[in-house]
Amino acid sequence: MVSTDTLLDFFLETRAHTEVICKPLEIEDYVVQPIIDVSPPKWHLGHTTWFFEEFILKTYDKSYQIFDEDFSFVFNSYYETVGKRVVRADRGNLSRPSVKKVYEYRHYVTEAMNKLLETNYNSTLLNVLEIGIHHEKQHQELLLTDIKYILGNNPLLPKYSDSIQEYTTEKEVQNWIGMSEGIYEIGHNSTDFCFDNELGRHKVYIHDYQISNKLVTNAEYLEFIKADGYKRFDLWHAAGWDWVQQYKITSPLYWHEIDGDWHYYSLKGLTKVDLEAPVTHISYFEAFAFAQYKNCRLPTEFEWEAAQNQFNWGQRWEWTESAYLPYPNYKKVDGALGEYNGKFMVNQKVLRGSSIATPKNHARHTYRNFFQTDLKWQFTGIRLAK
Amino acid sequence: MVSTDTLLDFFLETRAHTEVICKPLEIEDYVVQPIIDVSPPKWHLGHTTWFFEEFILKTYDKSYQIFDEDFSFVFNSYYETVGKRVVRADRGNLSRPSVKKVYEYRHYVTEAMNKLLETNYNSTLLNVLEIGIHHEKQHQELLLTDIKYILGNNPLLPKYSDSIQEYTTEKEVQNWIGMSEGIYEIGHNSTDFCFDNELGRHKVYIHDYQISNKLVTNAEYLEFIKADGYKRFDLWHAAGWDWVQQYKITSPLYWHEIDGDWHYYSLKGLTKVDLEAPVTHISYFEAFAFAQYKNCRLPTEFEWEAAQNQFNWGQRWEWTESAYLPYPNYKKVDGALGEYNGKFMVNQKVLRGSSIATPKNHARHTYRNFFQTDLKWQFTGIRLAK
Amino acid sequence: MVSTDTLLDFFLETRAHTEVICKPLEIEDYVVQPIIDVSPPKWHLGHTTWFFEEFILKTYDKSYQIFDEDFSFVFNSYYETVGKRVVRADRGNLSRPSVKKVYEYRHYVTEAMNKLLETNYNSTLLNVLEIGIHHEKQHQELLLTDIKYILGNNPLLPKYSDSIQEYTTEKEVQNWIGMSEGIYEIGHNSTDFCFDNELGRHKVYIHDYQISNKLVTNAEYLEFIKADGYKRFDLWHAAGWDWVQQYKITSPLYWHEIDGDWHYYSLKGLTKVDLEAPVTHISYFEAFAFAQYKNCRLPTEFEWEAAQNQFNWGQRWEWTESAYLPYPNYKKVDGALGEYNGKFMVNQKVLRGSSIATPKNHARHTYRNFFQTDLKWQFTGIRLAK
Amino acid sequence: MVSTDTLLDFFLETRAHTEVICKPLEIEDYVVQPIIDVSPPKWHLGHTTWFFEEFILKTYDKSYQIFDEDFSFVFNSYYETVGKRVVRADRGNLSRPSVKKVYEYRHYVTEAMNKLLETNYNSTLLNVLEIGIHHEKQHQELLLTDIKYILGNNPLLPKYSDSIQEYTTEKEVQNWIGMSEGIYEIGHNSTDFCFDNELGRHKVYIHDYQISNKLVTNAEYLEFIKADGYKRFDLWHAAGWDWVQQYKITSPLYWHEIDGDWHYYSLKGLTKVDLEAPVTHISYFEAFAFAQYKNCRLPTEFEWEAAQNQFNWGQRWEWTESAYLPYPNYKKVDGALGEYNGKFMVNQKVLRGSSIATPKNHARHTYRNFFQTDLKWQFTGIRLAK
Repeated sequence: MVSTDTLLDFFLETRAHTEVICKPLEIEDYVVQPIIDVSPPKWHLGHTTWFFEEFILKTYDKSYQIFDEDFSFVFNSYYETVGKRVVRADRGNLSRPSVKKVYEYRHYVTEAMNKLLETNYNSTLLNVLEIGIHHEKQHQELLLTDIKYILGNNPLLPKYSDSIQEYTTEKEVQNWIGMSEGIYEIGHNSTDFCFDNELGRHKVYIHDYQISNKLVTNAEYLEFIKADGYKRFDLWHAAGWDWVQQYKITSPLYWHEIDGDWHYYSLKGLTKVDLEAPVTHISYFEAFAFAQYKNCRLPTEFEWEAAQNQFNWGQRWEWTESAYLPYPNYKKVDGALGEYNGKFMVNQKVLRGSSIATPKNHARHTYRNFFQTDLKWQFTGIRLAK
Repeated sequence: MVSTDTLLDFFLETRAHTEVICKPLEIEDYVVQPIIDVSPPKWHLGHTTWFFEEFILKTYDKSYQIFDEDFSFVFNSYYETVGKRVVRADRGNLSRPSVKKVYEYRHYVTEAMNKLLETNYNSTLLNVLEIGIHHEKQHQELLLTDIKYILGNNPLLPKYSDSIQEYTTEKEVQNWIGMSEGIYEIGHNSTDFCFDNELGRHKVYIHDYQISNKLVTNAEYLEFIKADGYKRFDLWHAAGWDWVQQYKITSPLYWHEIDGDWHYYSLKGLTKVDLEAPVTHISYFEAFAFAQYKNCRLPTEFEWEAAQNQFNWGQRWEWTESAYLPYPNYKKVDGALGEYNGKFMVNQKVLRGSSIATPKNHARHTYRNFFQTDLKWQFTGIRLAK
Repeated sequence: MVSTDTLLDFFLETRAHTEVICKPLEIEDYVVQPIIDVSPPKWHLGHTTWFFEEFILKTYDKSYQIFDEDFSFVFNSYYETVGKRVVRADRGNLSRPSVKKVYEYRHYVTEAMNKLLETNYNSTLLNVLEIGIHHEKQHQELLLTDIKYILGNNPLLPKYSDSIQEYTTEKEVQNWIGMSEGIYEIGHNSTDFCFDNELGRHKVYIHDYQISNKLVTNAEYLEFIKADGYKRFDLWHAAGWDWVQQYKITSPLYWHEIDGDWHYYSLKGLTKVDLEAPVTHISYFEAFAFAQYKNCRLPTEFEWEAAQNQFNWGQRWEWTESAYLPYPNYKKVDGALGEYNGKFMVNQKVLRGSSIATPKNHARHTYRNFFQTDLKWQFTGIRLAK
Repeated sequence: MVSTDTLLDFFLETRAHTEVICKPLEIEDYVVQPIIDVSPPKWHLGHTTWFFEEFILKTYDKSYQIFDEDFSFVFNSYYETVGKRVVRADRGNLSRPSVKKVYEYRHYVTEAMNKLLETNYNSTLLNVLEIGIHHEKQHQELLLTDIKYILGNNPLLPKYSDSIQEYTTEKEVQNWIGMSEGIYEIGHNSTDFCFDNELGRHKVYIHDYQISNKLVTNAEYLEFIKADGYKRFDLWHAAGWDWVQQYKITSPLYWHEIDGDWHYYSLKGLTKVDLEAPVTHISYFEAFAFAQYKNCRLPTEFEWEAAQNQFNWGQRWEWTESAYLPYPNYKKVDGALGEYNGKFMVNQKVLRGSSIATPKNHARHTYRNFFQTDLKWQFTGIRLAK
């Protein structure tokens, strides 16, 4: 457990960074929700704040005055324990509270927390605080990917910032890292913070396998497109094939074919697809089909974790073949925070690593991200295994 | 045909009034679209402007520089003739162009029109100009009703303005105006402006009927609710009954039952339902069921027009029993403006009169408004006949 | 009012004829419901029988033993007054009662009616009996059109019968019948049977018009197809255009383009489209667009009725421009039979005439049929006016 | 590889048994498809026959005359390789081919196979034959569960047969079988037939666990219902909770609450719920929530396989916590048969064991069945672990 002072610094830095991410936005950008998976930036600002008000200030600060009784209703996400909430699909229908009011709410809560933490060293509080900070860091990542969707889905394709870099080219030649059959230990293994889904360190038997030292590039993915990868049903899961047909999928998200050339909307605006860059914004269905096309497969999350110190990761969330399931002896936390991870452990795939949208110090090699198999709006990527 | 000077004044007054309606809004209120029938205020501002750019400036002003090529795509509504457009359901997903930019667009186009009209007296131009002004006045009405929906659908129920009055109580006792069987002339009959759907003045044979001197009040409608009007299938059309079941309709829009008392969200905020006020925000299905409950019926649009000078109207758009159909010898205008009315003449009901959201000088006793039978968000009302 | 003896004959003839229509069917054909608008033939057999059991035998025959208590639930259609029912979309999901059992039910009820009518001359009974017979005749028409859909929707395209003739070629040259402006009397006007929606004979003022002596032929309709009629949005209602796009409509129902030639599935099986035959199986949307293409329009139901004795009709239900609305002074019958017509008087169009599927003696020049604007499975047709 | 003679006997026995299952049916029962997951019995009869025609007779019997060219279109299921097919949701809309014709098809193909197998000993053929037989056995199971749904969904609740027994009561007291941590070998391990998804025998490390000797009974499940198990969101996955809300799930499938008592539709007809019987017709979502309620969990498929020889199984397909994924080194078969299993390996859960609907000799302890998490129509059950 880190000290209160360190945690307070960590808290304040995190609160500030969320607002830095929003700097380039117009007020209008804070409000919209073009698809159900994307939340308005305003909502992220309010929800991460509500977490501290709901789970810390209301419990541990007897003198705390709730900022606005209605905000609990507006900014609760899925915590059924804590009462009613605006349904997810309606978040983009709310013009009020205004952005200005939401920032007031943030600063009010940050200030109250600051004051509370000067005197309160309760270890349960610190535990919830740490979760709250990491919760906000998770939302920082979502915030950036949601902003990208909001701008990148707009026909005017406005840019977010000139200074953001979505990737580094991996210069090395592709080759295979060989891993040997045996028992491996999987899961979190230190006193540092982790989420409950990383716990239950346990043994897994892994057979011989090879895993790529590099992420799949746009050049390789373009080859798949040109080889009619989106038209060959034999490469796809049945559900993936239905999805391709229904939504007429023909490329990664944010790709635009203009006069025969593929362009890509990045946070810097529209540019030609960089062939050396790691492919991104592909769904699990596409990652799987690509792997089939290459006569390879996706690694399991265990294979990934066992080999991760032998390759560079951190640009793209990497799809694995593993379904998101509890580790042996996984224990759901009691109360509202128990809703954090466990209840999503069905019909989702694990992603490992982290992405360029991940706040620094938030990445861990045992971190388990998870999404439905058709989602493309995250900075996802592909690392092959065989 | 009115003179250019008068039209220019009319144009400038109309342009200015649209912006007056938006005065009480926060920037965020301009952006959202809580249901498909509601358009973001920002879109109304842009669309009414685009109409003048597209149908006048591009054609009649050779020196005109288009403000932004992309705006045609963003602000076209349903004119298939004029090219692609953002689909209606996506209007609320666009954070850009910003509100500021849209106002710049408005002022740029208003100025260009102002300059053009100083020198150009082309009668076709003036004809389109007059349509454009009336088009904007129609959107002023929609703008206010859409703003009401945006605010009234928000769980915080923010008010729009303290000074707006949604109704005047009709003090007189309800009684029946008797009308005699015979041939009546229906349709527009002067050189003043009207829309194409009012033309083709023609004879209609009407049988003896009676029509109420008053609109139905909240007190009367509440009686219908208390008499289980929403639960008695025999009062409803089959399609209306399905609608009541599917959407669990139990009252007019904006009514809230709080601790046993009915409250109503008006543009001034939430208040108790005023029993003397004319009921509003009811669909055709509800108007019909209410009439059945009273052993009456709704008037046809011809009955309404024939009797209209014997009662006060102008608070509520009044549902009629008439389907929206072309008058005999109706002629659709050639080109894009031909899409204005004719293509909606199926599966809608005619409403007559006007409402408190109608801009002054925009109401006419021959005006034909029309909506689908399930829509409630307009300031609709009920006048009975028998 | 006809005599009991005549009615009894009429009843028995009608009951027998329903079964004649089903003669060519396999047992399997009685069961399926390929779209919600089509009912399984078995259901028609049971429902028309249930009508007599429910509205006559239960009320007027004290010794009557209900055949099966569950059948009321299975064979009620939309009479909310009479209790719960199998929802329409589920009719094709019921393998039981078996076809054999349904025939037993028919014969049991026919026999009970036969016995009852030997002694009971109650005029209310006779009135309901007459409605029940005409109700069954309406279902005979639906039965044949539903059978056509069941077989014509099957990829094997089995034929129904070699001896059924779907049309007679109209040999005369197309010309226009001129009708003069004035007051016309509309509605039923004799002591013969009619449905409630034909009543309220009343005056209608009609302006000068012309109506075609002939139905539109396949040759003419093919010209519309070849002139890209299905691709020209300007010919369609907005709702019609959405429908064409969504369902990718490119021809009348039952047309198949095979190696560049248009074929048509008739009850005799698949043949080439006969260019001289009157076009059929088109929706109102298509009838309207075709009329626009010809710079004509569809007649109103009043124009049709006023002119009907000057042309031959009876092959195709003819779409009119009139919405299905009550006549002035229309009175809904009390009780369950009041649900017969009135509750459908919204968002439907009137069709006039009758079709080759109409049982003989069932057609009347005041008869008002009605369907939603997108339905194609009836033997509909087009007669132009201008 | 078994000998040709044995395989021929196995083939003929299997073909005959499919028809035995259909013996109690009325012709009408063969046709309907009340939900998309259920196929009409007629379709099962035809599809299993088509498999032999398509994959054996067309390839290996040069003198074979195809029974009907259209049947390939009608009876293909999901083999994209083999061409177009009737979409799954439309299977219940086809009254033709008739049941009689489908039986003729069956006998024609069985006879042709019989003749072919007298002379042809090609080992590839025998391999496909073996798959075809097991394919038909899988369909025997589906056939019975689909028949149950067809009859049990009918408001008349007709019984299938008096002689079929849906369960045996497990008389022993519930206790926990303790299993020790270590490496276990998983997957098929003999020369007997198995499906491709059982192959790739491999090592799995399993931690200490306990597994119940008995299936969960109706008495235990009823306790869960009475303890508001369907109303406690904390017991459910988020997706499961949405499903419970949307479909208003309150009990296993085929349970009916009548006058306060729970009844159950079995293939013998409606009876009171037998408290001692193993609960069945529950979805994975329900199995999971029940386990949460008992502070237990579902076993993984590896835990199940490692312990299976210490308890009796074979009455209920048992839901596991394992997602349906390929084993290490899983190889998809080339060609159309490669579509058999691999393409379903996403977003489904593994079930282990077999059920009372499984044909004898078809159960194996390495068999991997799989279904979506919301499906209830199979004879599923729950065995707890901890």
